[in-house]
Amino acid sequence: MLQSMDNSHVSLVALSLASDCFEKFHCDRNVSLGLDLKSLGKVLKCANSDDAVTIKAVDRPEKITLSFESDGKERTADYELKLLNLDQDHMEIPKKDYTCYIQLPSSEFARICRDMSMFDESLTIACSSKGIRFSAKGDLGTANIQLNAGTAMDVSIEVQEPVTQSFAGRYLNTFTKATPLADRVKLYLSEERPLLVEYPIEDYGHIRYYLAPKVNEPDF
Amino acid sequence: MLQSMDNSHVSLVALSLASDCFEKFHCDRNVSLGLDLKSLGKVLKCANSDDAVTIKAVDRPEKITLSFESDGKERTADYELKLLNLDQDHMEIPKKDYTCYIQLPSSEFARICRDMSMFDESLTIACSSKGIRFSAKGDLGTANIQLNAGTAMDVSIEVQEPVTQSFAGRYLNTFTKATPLADRVKLYLSEERPLLVEYPIEDYGHIRYYLAPKVNEPDF
Amino acid sequence: MLQSMDNSHVSLVALSLASDCFEKFHCDRNVSLGLDLKSLGKVLKCANSDDAVTIKAVDRPEKITLSFESDGKERTADYELKLLNLDQDHMEIPKKDYTCYIQLPSSEFARICRDMSMFDESLTIACSSKGIRFSAKGDLGTANIQLNAGTAMDVSIEVQEPVTQSFAGRYLNTFTKATPLADRVKLYLSEERPLLVEYPIEDYGHIRYYLAPKVNEPDF
Repeated sequence: MLQSMDNSHVSLVALSLASDCFEKFHCDRNVSLGLDLKSLGKVLKCANSDDAVTIKAVDRPEKITLSFESDGKERTADYELKLLNLDQDHMEIPKKDYTCYIQLPSSEFARICRDMSMFDESLTIACSSKGIRFSAKGDLGTANIQLNAGTAMDVSIEVQEPVTQSFAGRYLNTFTKATPLADRVKLYLSEERPLLVEYPIEDYGHIRYYLAPKVNEPDF
Repeated sequence: MLQSMDNSHVSLVALSLASDCFEKFHCDRNVSLGLDLKSLGKVLKCANSDDAVTIKAVDRPEKITLSFESDGKERTADYELKLLNLDQDHMEIPKKDYTCYIQLPSSEFARICRDMSMFDESLTIACSSKGIRFSAKGDLGTANIQLNAGTAMDVSIEVQEPVTQSFAGRYLNTFTKATPLADRVKLYLSEERPLLVEYPIEDYGHIRYYLAPKVNEPDF
Repeated sequence: MLQSMDNSHVSLVALSLASDCFEKFHCDRNVSLGLDLKSLGKVLKCANSDDAVTIKAVDRPEKITLSFESDGKERTADYELKLLNLDQDHMEIPKKDYTCYIQLPSSEFARICRDMSMFDESLTIACSSKGIRFSAKGDLGTANIQLNAGTAMDVSIEVQEPVTQSFAGRYLNTFTKATPLADRVKLYLSEERPLLVEYPIEDYGHIRYYLAPKVNEPDF
């Protein structure tokens, strides 16, 4: 389980992978490791796609070690990364019910977020039993995209109570970088609660993004 | 018919599409719509390649509406763009005769403009019955490219009177962004008249770029 | 034979092509031509891949002429480049023996240099009979890549005396731009001598990069 929060504490990301998705998994007790994600990303780019990857940390660790070994061990690469002192420990996010639940192709969601952000920094999502509507209004004009449940694009919409909320588009655009991980994305919305954007990772786990809605009412 | 002029009024572009290239075309009376091309481009990028596109404007309009609908209308997107007040109305460009008329592969023209602009901001086109010659002279040296009429590259040259004129290369490089629209490009030149660069768009219409020659004689 | 040195005189590149790799080669006496490599690169990009290329310089030249002719001469392009006054003439580089000689896939070498430079500006190469080890240590942690001689990656290592030297990674990264020229790269090292990185160019010649080691001992 990996968690990270942006500096302004508006959004949060949580990655969860089941232990059986690793070839070998050994963990004596729960431990929180503070990692600089940018550095971790750099190191992971140094692995070959067919390398055997080993990630290790001792108890009360100051660093973690990542080892990449080629078949036959002709090439071995070791990287040590310093750990960060986290102000904050792992956060428990209560799994409540949401009043709107939408499933759609992840590429379609990415495209809508990108298109909308050309019009305004802010994006409004209105979800009702009729469908889901994304809108933005800016200096150059207005944009509205309406998706209806159907089989061609395979959009499914479950609504107990309609919700209309505005979000900062740049966070949504960041979330959609997970698009290559999953064909479909799940959106969960409720009044006065953060939006949950979930990308399933095969049968292993999922990556979840949470984003607080904008407080000001949209003016349209 | 779409027209646009650069800020310095050195160049002009005109796009013409026959009404029968649209599935449905309705126009009660001629109207000039002032559009910000950059915004229009952004909106057009939001269309899917197989969307049905509708463009609408009322009489004496303040905005136009672009609608994109997927097959089965599972996805509908509406964009409204504010219109600009144009200082200037549609310009009639007289279709006079030119003394030089050259046809060549559009990719070859694009490449010459690009290569020349590495040497100097200014590019000289000399057209005679012997062929067409592009030249540039700058700090790092000189460049000359000579094309002769022939079948290998399929260059055709018709010259009533030889012409030598200099142009600002950066405009030509901008024009050549239309290269993907057409395999071939037509150049029309006459002494003391703007160069006309024409890209045909299948049987539907054409895009025409006009560029005023530089007044100072080239020094070579 | 083409030679160039960087402004800080830390590295040197030498390109050697046998005269029989040219269709026609005529040279009355040895002459040093000072060329601005950036300009030369620009001009060479203007050639088509199937053009006949002619390079000419007179005795005591002030410029060289490069001509590119298409098949059938429908298109001819001439470029004249001004020559530079070189402070320094062609340098004779003595071909001494080196105590370590490594051959490895050029793409692997490029990747190691790229990966290491994410960690530190400086890269240490340690070569012994056990294998070759690349290491870097920086703010975000440490990186070690060990290559052993073997057939899978086809790494060959000949060591008379072990060598450990540090180099500036940005030069190495520049050298690896030659990677597309050759499948394999040869590294030659000796204590207190510049590293030689050699890319063979088929049977015609080679490109050789020399890089002075860093004077300060690495602190690990």
